[in-house]
Amino acid sequence: MSNSRTSSDKYAYDTAFLEDFATLSAFGATPGGGVERQAATAADGEQRAWLHQWLTDRGFEVRYDGVGNQFGLFTVTPGAPYVLSGSHLDSQPLGGRYDGAYGVLASAHAAHRAVQRWNASDGTPRHNVAVVNWFNEEGSRFKPSMMGSAVFTGKLPAETALTTTDPTGTTVEAALREIGTIGDYAGPEVAAYAEIHIEQGRDLENAGTTIGLVGSTWAARKYQVVVRGEQSHTGSTIMADRRDALFGASLLVVAVRELAEQSTDTPLHTSVSEMTVLPNSPVVVAREVRMHVDLRSPDEALLDAAAKRLAESIPGIEERASVTIEQVQTHGWAVAPFPAAGVELAAQAADDLGLSHRTVMTIAGHDSVNMKDVAPAIMLFVPSVEGVSHNEGEFTQDVETCAGTDLLAEVLHRLMSGALDSSR
Amino acid sequence: MSNSRTSSDKYAYDTAFLEDFATLSAFGATPGGGVERQAATAADGEQRAWLHQWLTDRGFEVRYDGVGNQFGLFTVTPGAPYVLSGSHLDSQPLGGRYDGAYGVLASAHAAHRAVQRWNASDGTPRHNVAVVNWFNEEGSRFKPSMMGSAVFTGKLPAETALTTTDPTGTTVEAALREIGTIGDYAGPEVAAYAEIHIEQGRDLENAGTTIGLVGSTWAARKYQVVVRGEQSHTGSTIMADRRDALFGASLLVVAVRELAEQSTDTPLHTSVSEMTVLPNSPVVVAREVRMHVDLRSPDEALLDAAAKRLAESIPGIEERASVTIEQVQTHGWAVAPFPAAGVELAAQAADDLGLSHRTVMTIAGHDSVNMKDVAPAIMLFVPSVEGVSHNEGEFTQDVETCAGTDLLAEVLHRLMSGALDSSR
Repeated sequence: MSNSRTSSDKYAYDTAFLEDFATLSAFGATPGGGVERQAATAADGEQRAWLHQWLTDRGFEVRYDGVGNQFGLFTVTPGAPYVLSGSHLDSQPLGGRYDGAYGVLASAHAAHRAVQRWNASDGTPRHNVAVVNWFNEEGSRFKPSMMGSAVFTGKLPAETALTTTDPTGTTVEAALREIGTIGDYAGPEVAAYAEIHIEQGRDLENAGTTIGLVGSTWAARKYQVVVRGEQSHTGSTIMADRRDALFGASLLVVAVRELAEQSTDTPLHTSVSEMTVLPNSPVVVAREVRMHVDLRSPDEALLDAAAKRLAESIPGIEERASVTIEQVQTHGWAVAPFPAAGVELAAQAADDLGLSHRTVMTIAGHDSVNMKDVAPAIMLFVPSVEGVSHNEGEFTQDVETCAGTDLLAEVLHRLMSGALDSSR
Repeated sequence: MSNSRTSSDKYAYDTAFLEDFATLSAFGATPGGGVERQAATAADGEQRAWLHQWLTDRGFEVRYDGVGNQFGLFTVTPGAPYVLSGSHLDSQPLGGRYDGAYGVLASAHAAHRAVQRWNASDGTPRHNVAVVNWFNEEGSRFKPSMMGSAVFTGKLPAETALTTTDPTGTTVEAALREIGTIGDYAGPEVAAYAEIHIEQGRDLENAGTTIGLVGSTWAARKYQVVVRGEQSHTGSTIMADRRDALFGASLLVVAVRELAEQSTDTPLHTSVSEMTVLPNSPVVVAREVRMHVDLRSPDEALLDAAAKRLAESIPGIEERASVTIEQVQTHGWAVAPFPAAGVELAAQAADDLGLSHRTVMTIAGHDSVNMKDVAPAIMLFVPSVEGVSHNEGEFTQDVETCAGTDLLAEVLHRLMSGALDSSR
């Protein structure tokens, strides 16, 4: 892939950052080169403790709110609001090293550098700065995803989050107490929010661009589906008597995929990736299958039409498999803009650093998608090699992770001066 | 349903048997009226202890072999071989009360009654009698099914069975030691084998017949299938880049069902009822799905053709879902007869007791399918209401369970006299 910067550039390699990223990548490291540190597991607790120490060593005060969001506060002016920057350290099972963790570490380094730069200058920032590691962005162990930022932004009641259970019945609250990162901090007053993340797509790589400036989100719809049949003997039950929930679920998986196959002009991403089969015995026809359906598109009308086609396909599946299907939308988000002033600020900062950039949409959900609704928010991407994500092979080149951190430091410095205050 | 016997018949209700069956049905009882006592769980251990005591109280000596098969021996003539009768007490998850357990309890009562009848007569039986509770017939916790009888008949090495693990990694050996029913008994010399079971189909009920005399088995083929794709982000990965193992698996489930739908003249039963999805996260495209495929038919040529059509469908599925599919036949059995002399013996006994009967095939596998290869074997069925099985609603009327036990007592008495010795 091409890149506008090379290792001879002055910003190219930040050794301290890369060493810290290597250290961070060792928590929950997997033999395949990825990480497995789902929310509030032991590995998540270890990396949180490490970040806690890192921040404390550099003068940040670390505090936890009631759902395990971890804040590192650097207070220059007591009583002033904070420019908040972060992402999430939790990962998918057999996930990659970059997804989330890169953004948290970049935020810590960038905030530290911004503070040092203000300290070395004659000026005083209008805002303080804080780093955040949001709890459970991934949603693999506890659903829904983006849980910590959803509670912080008032979209999800804290009580609902705390009583959510993982597949073994452990609650979020019990898991957070186990790793000791739950507190009573209400969270900082936020003047502006910034986040940097790997793209998890191919657009930047294909275009040979270093920085993506997220202008808006794709829309997304997520559904919980329950297919109900009846247990019977796989051998002896005559086919006409079967009410096979797994057959019904399989027909639905195929129907979901066909929605995307039928959408040739505008992208539509459709997925079923989680399925629970009951009783899941080799000789018992399944009585129930639970699954999640995920539909995403940059075009809301297309998404509406796809959701309608999916709903229309259900009666035929129910009849063919002699099952009943219940489909409930659990969450979703619209095509929504990030503020233009933030995109402009980041574009100017990138230009000043000599970093190539382009405006992109985000398909994946991020904590910034929640935060943009309560504060001026800037979302930045760096390229993902071959678009690989949620995979141990996830990779972004060092020169690009360092460039992104440089840009984030510049953005935070400008935000601390109040550059987006008129957007509030 | 109609029945040739009513509650006014002299054999109709055996109160002691029905009370014992109610007691047995309480082990692992579920709120829905079924039982959950998978192999070598605590509930399985409790029912085994109860049966041990029941047999001991009536003069049987209880011994365990190296894979947990539980034998109750009644020795009239030391050194003589045994007529063995039994089935299995283990159940599916949320299984029925009758599947297996009825046959074990009927064997215990029938053997006890046969012994009492010999004791009350002037004659001496040629053979002793023994009751057996085979380990892990169901195969839901530990695979394959019919494990205990497979080891006893030399079809499966004991070491393979003992090192088999359940989904949590517990071995058969560890689980058996936990419930304390493992020993070093080599097992009895078997002169003949008898088993009674619920039909798990509708033929007897539809015909209004009390007793099914199993003349032969359907053929069966069982496959382990692994579908391999690649983990990626369900939101951001473009559809063309996806290697979705769950989509590939779903296409295969539909293809398996279509084999049965295409077979209109001769029955073909096809099933996928167990599926393991990795990593099974709502936002990660599945990298791997493991599943079992089960094909059964009374016509081996049809089964061959279906297996061939299934194999031919795989390349298209691999291409459409960008996955690879590995299919391995794990076990199976041919259409195989039970000895005609045994069917004739049982038919004569049923006639003498005034019980209606007809010759049927068994679709489900039973321990008798293994035993018929090493000893003259008789397999009897009683009706299943609406053919319901592997379901909490499994039901057979009391008058019919009692009739079956009466017939089994008569059959065991005749087998103890050496009635099938010329078939050995």
